[in-house]
This record gives sequence, C-alpha cells and structure tokens, in this order.
Amino acid sequence: MLTGVFSYVKLVITGNITMFGILGSISEAGRIKMGNPATQFCWDVRLTEGLLGERAQAVRDKVIPYQWRALNDSIPGAAPSHAIENLRIAAGEKDGQHRGWVFQDSDLAKWLEAVSYSLMAESNPEWEAHADEVIGLLGRAQQRDGYLNSYYTITGLERRWTNLRDHHELYCAGHLIEAAVAYYQATGKDQLLQIVCRMVDHIGEVFGPGEGQKRGYPGHEEIELALLKLYRVTNNPAHLKLAEFFIEERGKQPHYFDAEAKARGEDPAAYRFDYSYSQSHLPVREQDTVEGHAVRAMYLLAAVAELALEKDDPELVQVCERLWHNTVQRRMYITGGIGSQDYHEGFTIDYDLPNDTAYAETCAAIGLVFFAQRMLALAPKAEYADVMERALYNGVLSGMSMEGTKFFYVNPLAVDPKVCAARHDLRHVNPVRQEWFGCACCPPNIARLLASIHSYIYSAGGAELFVHLYAGSTATIQLSSGQVEVVQKTEYPWDGTVQFTLNMQRAQEFSLNLRIPGWCTQHRVKVGDEELSSLEVHDGYLRLKRVWAPGDTVTLTLFMPVERVWANPQVEENVGKVALQRGPIVYCFEEVDNGPHLAALFIPRESEFQVEEDPSLGLPVLVGTGLRRQGTESLYTTTGPQDEAVPVTAVPYFAWNNRQPGEMRVWINEQ
Amino acid sequence: MLTGVFSYVKLVITGNITMFGILGSISEAGRIKMGNPATQFCWDVRLTEGLLGERAQAVRDKVIPYQWRALNDSIPGAAPSHAIENLRIAAGEKDGQHRGWVFQDSDLAKWLEAVSYSLMAESNPEWEAHADEVIGLLGRAQQRDGYLNSYYTITGLERRWTNLRDHHELYCAGHLIEAAVAYYQATGKDQLLQIVCRMVDHIGEVFGPGEGQKRGYPGHEEIELALLKLYRVTNNPAHLKLAEFFIEERGKQPHYFDAEAKARGEDPAAYRFDYSYSQSHLPVREQDTVEGHAVRAMYLLAAVAELALEKDDPELVQVCERLWHNTVQRRMYITGGIGSQDYHEGFTIDYDLPNDTAYAETCAAIGLVFFAQRMLALAPKAEYADVMERALYNGVLSGMSMEGTKFFYVNPLAVDPKVCAARHDLRHVNPVRQEWFGCACCPPNIARLLASIHSYIYSAGGAELFVHLYAGSTATIQLSSGQVEVVQKTEYPWDGTVQFTLNMQRAQEFSLNLRIPGWCTQHRVKVGDEELSSLEVHDGYLRLKRVWAPGDTVTLTLFMPVERVWANPQVEENVGKVALQRGPIVYCFEEVDNGPHLAALFIPRESEFQVEEDPSLGLPVLVGTGLRRQGTESLYTTTGPQDEAVPVTAVPYFAWNNRQPGEMRVWINEQ
Repeated sequence: MLTGVFSYVKLVITGNITMFGILGSISEAGRIKMGNPATQFCWDVRLTEGLLGERAQAVRDKVIPYQWRALNDSIPGAAPSHAIENLRIAAGEKDGQHRGWVFQDSDLAKWLEAVSYSLMAESNPEWEAHADEVIGLLGRAQQRDGYLNSYYTITGLERRWTNLRDHHELYCAGHLIEAAVAYYQATGKDQLLQIVCRMVDHIGEVFGPGEGQKRGYPGHEEIELALLKLYRVTNNPAHLKLAEFFIEERGKQPHYFDAEAKARGEDPAAYRFDYSYSQSHLPVREQDTVEGHAVRAMYLLAAVAELALEKDDPELVQVCERLWHNTVQRRMYITGGIGSQDYHEGFTIDYDLPNDTAYAETCAAIGLVFFAQRMLALAPKAEYADVMERALYNGVLSGMSMEGTKFFYVNPLAVDPKVCAARHDLRHVNPVRQEWFGCACCPPNIARLLASIHSYIYSAGGAELFVHLYAGSTATIQLSSGQVEVVQKTEYPWDGTVQFTLNMQRAQEFSLNLRIPGWCTQHRVKVGDEELSSLEVHDGYLRLKRVWAPGDTVTLTLFMPVERVWANPQVEENVGKVALQRGPIVYCFEEVDNGPHLAALFIPRESEFQVEEDPSLGLPVLVGTGLRRQGTESLYTTTGPQDEAVPVTAVPYFAWNNRQPGEMRVWINEQ
Repeated sequence: MLTGVFSYVKLVITGNITMFGILGSISEAGRIKMGNPATQFCWDVRLTEGLLGERAQAVRDKVIPYQWRALNDSIPGAAPSHAIENLRIAAGEKDGQHRGWVFQDSDLAKWLEAVSYSLMAESNPEWEAHADEVIGLLGRAQQRDGYLNSYYTITGLERRWTNLRDHHELYCAGHLIEAAVAYYQATGKDQLLQIVCRMVDHIGEVFGPGEGQKRGYPGHEEIELALLKLYRVTNNPAHLKLAEFFIEERGKQPHYFDAEAKARGEDPAAYRFDYSYSQSHLPVREQDTVEGHAVRAMYLLAAVAELALEKDDPELVQVCERLWHNTVQRRMYITGGIGSQDYHEGFTIDYDLPNDTAYAETCAAIGLVFFAQRMLALAPKAEYADVMERALYNGVLSGMSMEGTKFFYVNPLAVDPKVCAARHDLRHVNPVRQEWFGCACCPPNIARLLASIHSYIYSAGGAELFVHLYAGSTATIQLSSGQVEVVQKTEYPWDGTVQFTLNMQRAQEFSLNLRIPGWCTQHRVKVGDEELSSLEVHDGYLRLKRVWAPGDTVTLTLFMPVERVWANPQVEENVGKVALQRGPIVYCFEEVDNGPHLAALFIPRESEFQVEEDPSLGLPVLVGTGLRRQGTESLYTTTGPQDEAVPVTAVPYFAWNNRQPGEMRVWINEQ
C-alpha cells in the first residue's frame, strides 16, 4: 500500500507498547537539544482508577457510540450531522447536496481520533470496523491529486482554496491528519496515514513561498499542530516545513485574506471581524497579547510552541512565553476557561472576565490544555502543568455531563436560567447541557482529549521522568537508563496521597520529578518508609534523583485543604468575591443545594468548610456556613441590610447541572 | 382661520397667564371626579434660580439653537438630519429622496415643542419666526385629506398606513400634535393646531372600530397621550375617543400586526421581536408586568393613566398602579433609568438590572417622568413624585452635558471606556456624550422636557395646592378660593430649605400640601416664625390647611444627610454594593477624582462623607475615606487581599463625564 508520495518510515508494529517506544525514538534525538530539559510525553499509560479514568471510560461507553449514530444521522430528534452522507456524496456513491457546516468533515475526523485513543485503552472490533469503513470512504472521496474535502468536492472544486479566511479547508485537513496519526498509533494501520500524506503533498504543492504557490494560511488554525504531529511520525521534512510556512506566513503584509477577498470580488473591509479574530493581525513573532477567537489562538500557540522546540528557536520560545503569560495571567477564568465574549468567541482585553456573559468554550479550554502540554515539553515548569490541570479538571470536564451524554458548548461561571431566557446578551448561554449541537465541535473534541488523557501524565527525556498529573495508572516508560513501569495508586483529585511503585528488571539511576502543584502549600514525600526532608522544589518539581531498585515505592502527600481564591482586583466583577478550590478542583454553588438567589449569599472570611461525600452527586462537596442577605419589599432602601446564617454547599464546578437545572455561581460575595 | 374640521373652542388670548388660567378651566370640571383628589398641573410658573432653572436656561441658550442648525443640516461634521429638507421635498418645493429615519419628522416636532415651552419663559422673535416658517412648511406638506408625513408623501402615499408596526406614522403624528398644543399654549397662534386637527380628523377616519376602518394602532405609542393633550385644548370628544380606541384596541386578537404583515406579503413570524416589544402582546388591561421597549411602554402608560382619569375608570387605574409598581419596584435603576438591555431597548425581567450593559435610554427616563406626572394627577401620592424627581435629577439630567451641548443616549451605571471599546455587548454604550445622534430622539426630547419642567412643580384642584418639586420659582395658581402667587426660594436640590411666600389680593382658605420626599427622614416646618409640630404626613404630603393671609411665609426644612442606599438583594449585581444619595441626587464615582479601577474601591459601612463644593464641577460633591484593594501580579491568589485607606470623592451622577473621559460607577463595593 505504500506509494511514492508516501515518505514516512514504515515501522514494524508488534503491539502498542513497542510501537510507541519506537515512535518515540524516531524523533527523540531531535527533541533534547534546547537548554531546557525538553521531554516527550509518554503514551503507553493505562488509567486504572479515579476521575480521569472514569471520564475516559464514559467517552468509550457513551460518547463514541452516540457520536457514531450522530455522524450517521440516526438520532431521532437531533439535528442531522450529514458528515458521513456528505462524504458518500463526495465519493460519488450517492446523489445530493452538501449539508451542514463547511467544516462538517472535522467532526468525523475528531470521532476517528477519539476512537483511536480509545482503542489504545481497550480493543473494540466494532468501532475498528466502523473506523475502517469510514477510512475507506475517505479514500474514495479523495481526489486524484490528493485533495480531500467534502464541501468543495460537492459544491465545486474550481472554488477550492479561494476562501481560507472563512471556509476551514485547512482546518478540516488538520483534523484528518490528527486522526490519521492517532489511528496509526493505535492500530498500526496506515491507510488513513497514506491518505493524509497524499493530501498534505497536494497542500504542499498549492501553498508555499515558491512561484505559483499561494502564500495563504488557514483562517482557523489546526493544520499547523497536525503537521507537526505528522512530522513526528513520518520524519518527512516537508511536513515540518509546511507547518513552519503556515505559522510564519500568518499576518504578513500585504495581507493574504485581503488579496483573497478581492480575488473573490469582495471588499475586504466588509469583513465583520478584524484579522485579530484569526490571530493574523500581525506575524505571530510580533504579537504581545493573545487575541481573537480563543480556540484558534490556542491551536496556533500549541503549534508555535512545538515549532519552537523543533526548530530550537529562542525567539519563538519567547513569543510563546509572552503569549502564555498574557493568556493565563490576564485573560483566563479560574476554571481555565478562556474567551470572554460571545461575539467573536474570544478574548477581549486584560482582566475583562465577566462571569455570566463568558464564552469559555469547551474547545478553548481543550486548546489551552494543548498549549500547556507543548509549553511543558519546551520546559517542565509546574506553572504550565498547573494551568493544564486547572483547565482539564474544570473548564474541560464541565463540558460533559457525568453520564457522558450531554455537553456544554459555553461554560460561564455564573448562570441564572431565568436571566438567560430573558437577556439577548446571554443567548449563547444554555443553562443545561445539550445532547448535540448544530455546530458540534465541542463534544467530539472533549471525547478526543479525554480518550487521550493518559498521554498527559508523564513526560520523559534522557534519565529524567516528570510526573505532571496524578491519576491511578500503569505506565511503561523508556528512559536512557532503561524501561520502567510506573504504577500510580491515588484517589486524586479528591485525595492528595499518591503512591508510586517503580517496577524494573534491574536497578536504574534516574530522576523522578514530582510536580508540586501551585495550589499546594504543604507536601510530604516518603521513599519506602523513609520520609525525605529539605527537598528542593525546582520550577515546581521535586526532583528525586537516585538509583532506584525494582519495586521501590514513593509516597507523595499533597495537603489539600479547602482554599479561598481571590482574583486580581482588576477583574472588576470579582472584587469583593471569593471562590473555593480544593486541590485542582474549583467549586461552585448550585441552586439545588443552596436555594435560589445565589447572588445574595455571602461567605465570611473566617468561616470553615468541611469535605463531605454527597450522595446525589457521588463526589466530595464542601459544606459550611454562609450568610444570606435578607430580602426587602422595596427595590431600594436606606435601611442597612440584614444577613442570616445559612448552611451552604459547594460542588465541583465540572459537576454542576447534573442533578436539576438552576442557578450556579463560582464567585460568591465575601464578608 | 377656523374651519369646519376644527372644533376646539377658540379662546381670547390676552397673555400667557390668562390663557393658562382659561385653558385650565376648560377641562377642570371634568377632572375632579374620582375618589382621589385629582389635580391639574400648573403651567404659569417661572423658574427663577437653581438647578432646574439653569438646565432650562441651557436648553434655551444651547440646545434649541444647535438643534435648529442640526434640523437644517448645517452643522459641519455632524450626520445631517434631513428633517426640514424632507418636508420641503414632501411639499413639492424641492426634488429629492427622503433621507434619514422614517420618523425623522418627529425630531422637528420635538424641537417645535421645546421652542414653545421656552417662549413661555422668555420671548424670542427669532425662534418664533423659525417656528412659524416650519409650521408654514408643515401646512404645505400636508395632503388635502389631512395626511401629514414626509416619509410616505415622498416614497409613495399608496403605501401609507400599511406598516404601523415599524414605520412610526402615528408616532410622528403624535409629536406634531404635542408641538401644536404647546405652540398654541405658548403663543396663542393656532395654525399648527389647525393642521394637526385636520390630520387627526383624517386619522380618525382611517382608524376605528367602524366598518371599513382599520383596527390598527401605533407600533410606537405616542399619539395616545398627544390626543389626550389635544382633547384638553379642543374639548372635542372625537379626540378623546380616538385616544381611547388606540389604547383599548392594542393587543387584541386577531392581532392587527399579524394581519398587516400578511397584507404586505410578509410572514408575521419573521418579525425579530415578539409583540411585547410594543406592549401589544396583550390588551393593556390584562398586562401584569411592564414589558418591551421602555420608551414605548412609558408613553403608553402615561396615556393610560390620563385616560383612566378622563374616563373615571377604576379598572384602568388598577392597571396603572400594577404596572407602575412593577416598573418602579422591580425594573428601575436607582437613577430612574429604565430598560435593562440594548437588544430591544427595554425591560427584561424583575430585578434584572445590570449596571454596565444597561440601556436606560434618556428618553425612557423622560417617559417615566410623563407616567409619574399622570399618576400624580390621578392621586397625589409622594411615591409618584419621588420617582418623578429621581428620574428627573438623575436619569434625565445625565442625558445632557452641563454646557447643554452634548448628550447621552444610554445611561449605564458603570462605565469603563476600555471595556466599552473591547466588548460587543457594550457597543451601545458611548463612554462620552455626543453632539448629535443618527437616531436623534433623545436630545430634542430632553430639550422639550427641561423647557417645560416648570409645569411639573405644582398641581392644584379645588382648594388643594400640591407642591411636588422644590425649585426657585414664581407661580400664579388658580384655586377655588382665588388666585395665589407662590414664590419659592431655595437652593434645592443642594440644600433642603425651601421658603414659600404666598402673595394674594386677600386672605384665602386653602390647603398647601408639601411633599415630604421618600428620601427624607426628618423635616421641619415653620409658618412665619411659628414652628409646627406633630403634623401628619398623608401619602407623603404634609397638609397645611388654613386661612392664609397675603404675604404669609412657610419655611420647609428637609434634612439632607448623605444616605447609603442598598438594592434589593434580588438585584444580583448590587449585592454587597452600596450607592450614595443626598436629597434626590444619586452620586457616582469618577476616574478623574478617584483614579482608575473604580471596581477595586470599597466603602466601609461606618465611614462618613462630607459635602464640599467642587471647583472643577461647580457642584456639591461628597468627600470621604474609602478603601482600595491592592493589586497583585497573579491573576488568582490564595493570599487574602489587602486594602488601603484612600480619599474618595463622589459627584452627582447627572454631572459625570463633564471634565474628562474615564470610568464611572454608581454602585461601590461595601465593607
């Protein structure tokens, strides 16, 4: 099946573990070259217990089967996806018009990617058969020259590549590339990888700095990070070069989107956004603040960080650090949600973080996880892992119901269903999770992230092993000292005790770098029964360098009291308010526990909260005493308000709206 | 000049004072018939000193001349109004297209009305000549059948009366009627009154319950209250009946706007609003909550209250009371602003009063003054005058700069120019007053209200004289006991002492009813040098019934400390916040006095404020000590915030943005 256009090194696949080891080794030599101890994330990890494992299980049990039916338009009552039907029409196997969004192909690609990661956790011949079917269909829908996109294939190939600004062709291509890499990693099957390599060859002919080539780049970034993933598998320099071209060309003058609009006979000035919407207002190297559509910004920055590593480019590293800082220290909700407004689904200005009108799209928090992971690969600093964990446990997990059957697209930090129903500026806020969306980017995106979440736990390079996330799991990790099986036993994020067992054939010398989360002010470490003291935490990681013996255990205890969090007082809405956090989990108050009018609740600064298991949620909740401001008949009064002590309960933000609809608030008035 | 279509009683005019006396007497017999002591407002009042007089003076000095130039498209750089040009084209005196809004005629009518009231205060031959010119032009633009509207006259009379829902023909007619009544009252000239009576005869033929008549009513209410004003002058029952028809027909099923849309070949369901937008979702008698576009709602309710009085209809009085209560106790900003959102410029739900995204259109606060005045005429209860005063001194006056040259269309209670520039949901908020607007409803509306504000001070009926507003003024008032000249000397609203002198030919027995404002918890009254005690306040009025001798003086002292105001805790945004008020004046904090980041200011509950004259504003401001929450570098922190004592200054809300642009906030965090 290998053809001339197909240049990656075909690997002998003997099983997932071996494969990942080999895949890792392909580009490892190219990674560890910066001053920072760059590391590679480890894929051979199986989640065995705990919250992350359960969420990945829910993806396998509920999301993937549901989405398969959605993609096949077989869910009664739900808006049809048309994704598979469009491909059938494009393949000439059916008559009809293209229906749905121009980027409908990407939903199918994200499903394929989620299936791929899920097959790493457990085999499923039925899904694999469905995936192979779909891959066959994709092959038949591909044009002879490699082009693959159902929208333009159906509506007129002569118009392809004429509207990169709006029409998501390169975005869809990117998702297909990610799916192909994942399916190859999971199954060793290369049919889709061949398809996308042919597609990328075609794209590389159309786009580039050469004569007769278009100097374009996608309106919605995605292909950049996908090409870098592909490069990691194929080692084909053309794939790296194309990613680099798309990243570096973006935002240059004369502006490609201007020229493209004029060529379509349109006035570029009639565009409803400015180019910061797609981060093309300036070349990325000249950008000082994170702007525009939040998902696009994160996909771009994830790629930029990876390119900085691949190219060993200190200026690009600085760009990433600058935009990272602006994102997480100026424009991020406490939940890791990003995107302060609905209008362009994106960033506004520093410290503008309204709670109720927030967009905080699930996909944007996912994008922040991608960006954080690449920053961690550049330099293992806990500040990156802290944000990755914050976004994951809060702004991402909130996007899916506990059952795994319903989804939030936007994730505000204050919701009042009555107000949402009445206010036009809240029309984007759905106060209950939905089964599916007309624009269904978020559900398959959360599925592919959670299905691959095992790959965010460890990174390794040389004889350094970093633990970024704590989750019950078994990992097989290749270090320069040899292979190690690392078993984590923990109830994290509900309990801060994590026990590691290091299983090896023989003693090895390496460093175990344990992340001490930013939220944790007190920790303890034991190796076997020996308590270690005076250990230095460097960049947020506790480095245990020693010769480890097979079966050695390390017990990390992260003290996890209920913490009050205050926002920078430049966040106008949150001055005078406080949020509760325990471990990485941000809590919120729901009407079902606390009655209506949550805005009238106060938390005294000295009040204490207890952790209790809530039977209705099956999760630890926080229980304490608050104050409720008493109502008045008058709208305005000069009589000082009265407060009454009331019991209050806070639940994990990600778990809100799983019992009954109602109000929710993260930030509560403080007294 | 009187013709057959013209049925009002022509009065012998010997001067304004006589005229208003006679005009008052025309309908007085018809007014005092309800259980409540209904009264009529007194027009023969001259403002002599103080804030209201200064504002009316600014209208005469600045607004009327400016608007005349605007109406004539002779302001360089400003969007042309086209209002006079449209009429010239409609009169066949010029070629061209109609330009500007379909309701452009109404700007001219409001200017005429403002000129009329200003001519009551001081003669101005130049304006009177301009007004006569315009009235002549209006006469020439009128059709033979009485129709008068430049838009349809230019664009096609065959389409007139086919889109009452959107096209404001009856609204424009209403404003012309109000202008005609005012100009007649001011000058005794009846040319415009004749024009509008012919127009109303035409409207009365087209609309009504009879066979062949349209059962329509305006999308934007206005003609209802105008017809009731006209009726007061003409005593023509057809004018009352037409007002009644428009009010009672509104919202009946089958819905007129449905039928009208279908007749235009449009799908009624394609309308972007629901009919609550124009208060036509239900007949007004069945409405329990105030809904839709706030200006429309107020114009309707002002008319309903007046109709209730005219018709002596207790059910209609209940409707007014119910909707009044809902407006002022559930849906009104502390400034008297109404309309919580931009989208439909109107009401949302009870207690939904966001400060930054507020619409609070100047015209809506003006409408609330109209509604309050009619409620006061129904029953002199201080709760109505309290709201009238609140809206006037805050949400209305804020609409015009101190100079009288710039205007706010929307009046939010929290403004941050940086955020306004960045956020699409704040695109309606202009953080500085503008010279003119494309849709210029507010500047001429504020002009006509302020030019007539002298008529809101007193109402009288029988031997009862009510003082609703305190303002330096001289009034000539006809009571059943005889004529009284009432001279008020006061620095209100900056000082609570008001001295009344009662000048009469002879002693008279009547009641002087002095309003004790809702904001006032302590007052004193002296008659001459005699301090009265144990006086009962009934419905907010202190009733001094006695035989008054010529030259008697009454001194009312309203204690005016700085008051803290708290909002009902169901107003989500304001829980934990406090506002400052002194007398009827609501204060706010500006960046120019307090530095940026006003959201980070706190006011301790026990802190005291002093009143000081501010040289930069020339107004009394409040000076005290607050706390400023100290900044942090981190966006989120678990370290408890630090506050620093800082001097703070609050200025009258209406006077904000008169020095330099910047942030502003009414509600401040409390500690």
